[in-house]
Amino acid sequence: MATGSVYPKSFASDNHAGVHPDVLAAISEANVGDAPAYGDDRWTHDFEEQVKDAFGADAVGFPVLNGAGANMVGLAEMVGRYDAIICPNTAHIVTHETGASERLLGVKLLTVPTEDGRLVAGDIKARLGVVGMAHEPQPRVVSISQVSELGTCYTLDEIAALAEVAHGNGLLLHMDGARLANAAAYLGCSLRAITTDVGVDMVSFGGTKNGALAAEAVVVLRPSLAAGIAFLRRQSLQLASKTRFISAQLSALLSNGLWQTNAAHANAMSRRLADGIADVPGISLRYPVQSNAVFAALPEYAITSLQEQFAFHVWDASEGVVRWMTAFDTTPDHVDDFLAAIRKAASA
Amino acid sequence: MATGSVYPKSFASDNHAGVHPDVLAAISEANVGDAPAYGDDRWTHDFEEQVKDAFGADAVGFPVLNGAGANMVGLAEMVGRYDAIICPNTAHIVTHETGASERLLGVKLLTVPTEDGRLVAGDIKARLGVVGMAHEPQPRVVSISQVSELGTCYTLDEIAALAEVAHGNGLLLHMDGARLANAAAYLGCSLRAITTDVGVDMVSFGGTKNGALAAEAVVVLRPSLAAGIAFLRRQSLQLASKTRFISAQLSALLSNGLWQTNAAHANAMSRRLADGIADVPGISLRYPVQSNAVFAALPEYAITSLQEQFAFHVWDASEGVVRWMTAFDTTPDHVDDFLAAIRKAASA
Amino acid sequence: MATGSVYPKSFASDNHAGVHPDVLAAISEANVGDAPAYGDDRWTHDFEEQVKDAFGADAVGFPVLNGAGANMVGLAEMVGRYDAIICPNTAHIVTHETGASERLLGVKLLTVPTEDGRLVAGDIKARLGVVGMAHEPQPRVVSISQVSELGTCYTLDEIAALAEVAHGNGLLLHMDGARLANAAAYLGCSLRAITTDVGVDMVSFGGTKNGALAAEAVVVLRPSLAAGIAFLRRQSLQLASKTRFISAQLSALLSNGLWQTNAAHANAMSRRLADGIADVPGISLRYPVQSNAVFAALPEYAITSLQEQFAFHVWDASEGVVRWMTAFDTTPDHVDDFLAAIRKAASA
Amino acid sequence: MATGSVYPKSFASDNHAGVHPDVLAAISEANVGDAPAYGDDRWTHDFEEQVKDAFGADAVGFPVLNGAGANMVGLAEMVGRYDAIICPNTAHIVTHETGASERLLGVKLLTVPTEDGRLVAGDIKARLGVVGMAHEPQPRVVSISQVSELGTCYTLDEIAALAEVAHGNGLLLHMDGARLANAAAYLGCSLRAITTDVGVDMVSFGGTKNGALAAEAVVVLRPSLAAGIAFLRRQSLQLASKTRFISAQLSALLSNGLWQTNAAHANAMSRRLADGIADVPGISLRYPVQSNAVFAALPEYAITSLQEQFAFHVWDASEGVVRWMTAFDTTPDHVDDFLAAIRKAASA
Repeated sequence: MATGSVYPKSFASDNHAGVHPDVLAAISEANVGDAPAYGDDRWTHDFEEQVKDAFGADAVGFPVLNGAGANMVGLAEMVGRYDAIICPNTAHIVTHETGASERLLGVKLLTVPTEDGRLVAGDIKARLGVVGMAHEPQPRVVSISQVSELGTCYTLDEIAALAEVAHGNGLLLHMDGARLANAAAYLGCSLRAITTDVGVDMVSFGGTKNGALAAEAVVVLRPSLAAGIAFLRRQSLQLASKTRFISAQLSALLSNGLWQTNAAHANAMSRRLADGIADVPGISLRYPVQSNAVFAALPEYAITSLQEQFAFHVWDASEGVVRWMTAFDTTPDHVDDFLAAIRKAASA
Repeated sequence: MATGSVYPKSFASDNHAGVHPDVLAAISEANVGDAPAYGDDRWTHDFEEQVKDAFGADAVGFPVLNGAGANMVGLAEMVGRYDAIICPNTAHIVTHETGASERLLGVKLLTVPTEDGRLVAGDIKARLGVVGMAHEPQPRVVSISQVSELGTCYTLDEIAALAEVAHGNGLLLHMDGARLANAAAYLGCSLRAITTDVGVDMVSFGGTKNGALAAEAVVVLRPSLAAGIAFLRRQSLQLASKTRFISAQLSALLSNGLWQTNAAHANAMSRRLADGIADVPGISLRYPVQSNAVFAALPEYAITSLQEQFAFHVWDASEGVVRWMTAFDTTPDHVDDFLAAIRKAASA
Repeated sequence: MATGSVYPKSFASDNHAGVHPDVLAAISEANVGDAPAYGDDRWTHDFEEQVKDAFGADAVGFPVLNGAGANMVGLAEMVGRYDAIICPNTAHIVTHETGASERLLGVKLLTVPTEDGRLVAGDIKARLGVVGMAHEPQPRVVSISQVSELGTCYTLDEIAALAEVAHGNGLLLHMDGARLANAAAYLGCSLRAITTDVGVDMVSFGGTKNGALAAEAVVVLRPSLAAGIAFLRRQSLQLASKTRFISAQLSALLSNGLWQTNAAHANAMSRRLADGIADVPGISLRYPVQSNAVFAALPEYAITSLQEQFAFHVWDASEGVVRWMTAFDTTPDHVDDFLAAIRKAASA
Repeated sequence: MATGSVYPKSFASDNHAGVHPDVLAAISEANVGDAPAYGDDRWTHDFEEQVKDAFGADAVGFPVLNGAGANMVGLAEMVGRYDAIICPNTAHIVTHETGASERLLGVKLLTVPTEDGRLVAGDIKARLGVVGMAHEPQPRVVSISQVSELGTCYTLDEIAALAEVAHGNGLLLHMDGARLANAAAYLGCSLRAITTDVGVDMVSFGGTKNGALAAEAVVVLRPSLAAGIAFLRRQSLQLASKTRFISAQLSALLSNGLWQTNAAHANAMSRRLADGIADVPGISLRYPVQSNAVFAALPEYAITSLQEQFAFHVWDASEGVVRWMTAFDTTPDHVDDFLAAIRKAASA
């Protein structure tokens, strides 16, 4: 605490990190007297232009307050009263939003078990047998998380294939991009290449895990889905009165490639961590490391010992799987300290 | 714009103002490395203690993201599936939340026309005739806004009287306190005196209009209503992952009486404005000035002329009523400049 | 009770009447062994053809279980998540469905005070000021009741005028026709003339008050609104497994003009009742008698005395207004007995 | 068709059957002049007394219109806004109600794969790990179907064990009893023994599949859950205006043991069918036959051939499993004719 830091460094979540200095500076710089409320301000207008630059000229961005909010606002536009959403059973909308999909949208989630958090086209097709049956909710949206909740990334071709199957069957493709920046950094591509260009219709674009204080965006890529978002955002409690301060955060991330820098760094730290455990006996990676998360299996005694010193989540206690996450502000020293502790715990 | 300010000074809303320097400083000070997410951090714990100090030992505070969110989370705990909320037809939950009460809560709002935005006990009684009738939603909550949307304040006795009628008939009393600070400052009383001590069960405590960036709180005063709030907050999209930065804002307002200083100043600026127009021919106050809002009736040509220079809302075009609001950062010079323009416009 | 009848004859509601013999016979006749469930049966197919005959070739009929159900299923197709319904404040969907519109549809009802239960075009226009404002639910449907809840009927021209204003502003026109038969009988026109031909988009067509046991229909007149009804009907709990018995009831009413005969008779009985009180001192009609309801104002002592012998509702106790309803099985003798009692009570 | 019957005899569902003559007679007998609407009639009062006789003195019965309706009304009283329901993944509320649980209740269904459509206590315990976690819906109700959707029955001890685990963890036990009569007949016990006496809190008691036209009941066994049902029934579109005709149907089934007679007969016909295929090569039972359903696996060519003559559902095409159901009016001859066809199809 002498250093002001709560932990040595948390590996529990990228949302344990604070705010990137550039984002904080942007907030301060937006604090210059009065501005219209609810998004009719120049910071939001700037952000809207940046969204077009980043995602394509037809893209429309709406700042919102958190990731669950981005999902619920975007999906509310995509699903009707008797519709269903096909998604992996590990999806954030399934597991960590307290049933918001059911309560706020009233839809059924058709959850699919997956190998590594990622849908394949066959998963969609297998759920289409109910189409036209009045006793069953109708599949209308496929929702994928990029990065997935297991730290894996879809390739561009894989997304395109999902979009093709979805669109070919009258469904829409939604992307929970709470860590979209990490995926784009991992794949070495632009935000547009990973979304618009491969057929995604709606994106929840995450800022908070990328260094913002509290800022995400609903980014509409299919123009016909844009008209209602402003109403749904307000109704869904996701509109800040002083929206300029939300937009300013997003603008900071979209300026000078900060989103990319932050994401690439966080990814590199997870890579360093994964590489560092490669030769540690008794520890194995559970999923490919394709972002800023490392899922590893290790002995229970090692977990217990490590948790006395470092914060991280046990993902699956029965199988000894843990999740370690890195953030924009994780340093090589943080990782190396953690690696030393891991080695010690594993050898105990 | 050279000064970075969008307006000379907006009189349109207290949410056109920026962030108070102390609040911004508190955000920066909370940016010290890692902290647990979702409110399990020391800033939030500090805020929770401050809530008990301010509202009473039984009070439980939950930081949320905006005022509509505070209302929807608190009310979600208070109403069941076939319940109704009695409130003035000017209530924010009626007029400015895009039907969130209906969509998110599924309840009917039993709206009451009022003289000045304030309910009286008889309004509640008059709505109780449907109790027990299976074809009608059942009144379960009385929701009042303090300050009301017309700038007026309930006295402590008036609130106590409403609480007595509500409780005597099995109803709960909810207070939309988006401008609770302004009411307490106007009445010269503590936050506790204006809520807990007069029988309020649940409060939406506003920070944003009082100088925060985006920070409000659900404050539960009846302990039996507290257990579900954490779930409802998450489900209702009102939980920030980096909650420490929301709590830090609220803490700043609750420290050193900043909420009071800000509110009293904003109120004084409205008082100065109201006093300044007292002798202007053709302009009259529409409601008593009891907070940081001035509702005035003036000729259409004066409105048109004034709006070319200053931002404010026309409240009722048919009657020539406008709303002028002041904020924590409105200065006497701002008011005097505006008064000069009003005089000129009125005499044109 | 010796006769098996509960009352001398109830004037409380047309749903106090039993089932017309032809409807009961139709139920029995449909009880011939097995039939597919959920509407894929020949009685339902027959009914669907009858709907086209009665309402026009594009009309699609869906049997449902009750009037609130017909309203909720039809409206569910017409309104989205942030939409609002403009309707009289006396509408059944406002006053007698326990907030189903709010809970099941999640919409706001924009209620309009009226003279006699009927909207006029200006009422719609006056509610359109909020269009495009993200803080307000968006008017999407105008819902009118024909017969209105005050016993009055819209003329064909009046409906056409409402449809024109609605459609001209991007709104749809819904008709709660729980007593549509009575309106058509009063106006001396076909079901088609009163709906399809004057621009109505969706009708709740009532059978129960017209002599059925429990049978209503959602009748879609704008083909683009038909695709989802089967799903919404099932989801909204309005699909009977043995639908043939619901369809058989509706078919009976649509055969040989039974709906018309029943409605015209019920109307005539109300006319007889209204004519009979014309010369009774102290009693006056409150609304024009244009269906099977008589709203009258009479002294409190007369109300009290009459209610000892006859069942009817006091509509507005403060103004001494009662509602008397007649049904398909009300006889001239029933009316004359009631009239005699009224005269006696009024003169007491 | 000469006989007016649509099929030789349908084995597709017990809701393909018509109405039992005693039920039809009861409807006719209730058609004696006027009666109060919405359940304040003597037939409903009689039914309410019969419910107490059948389920215990504390039981409160509410007539409703269909099975999905009974489920949604009962469950609406049992679950709050952030609650979840634990149930088999074969439950009717999961598979055949078009997402009504999600849309009308807003709850998440925590579905459990089972061997034979029946939960075991361990299934409940395994779902309790999320209790207290604000990101997850909270288990509040266990819902079981008795008879299950796979034709199997819980023993009394099994139900008691589920109730014990549920209640011991603060959960409630709901029973979808669309075929409760068949279960009681199979187990040779009373309705009370199978519900009240083993800890069930709320039952959907089915009449339609047992010989009614359209009549089910919400039966509340835990008195604290009764107060809101009347409101929820009306709001959920499950209240008939002429409720006497719904109650009369239920009364007929509850009189003279008709429910038992009908159920025992239907069960016996399934038993006869199951026994008859025991020695047919290539055909095997999929689940124990414990009610009026037979699930069998047979070769695809046999299915195809049989469906040309008889109506039944293919339950799982990939595994060649079909469902054959019998009803109160299935005769031994019907079964024997079907058996002959099965033998012929299987040997082809």
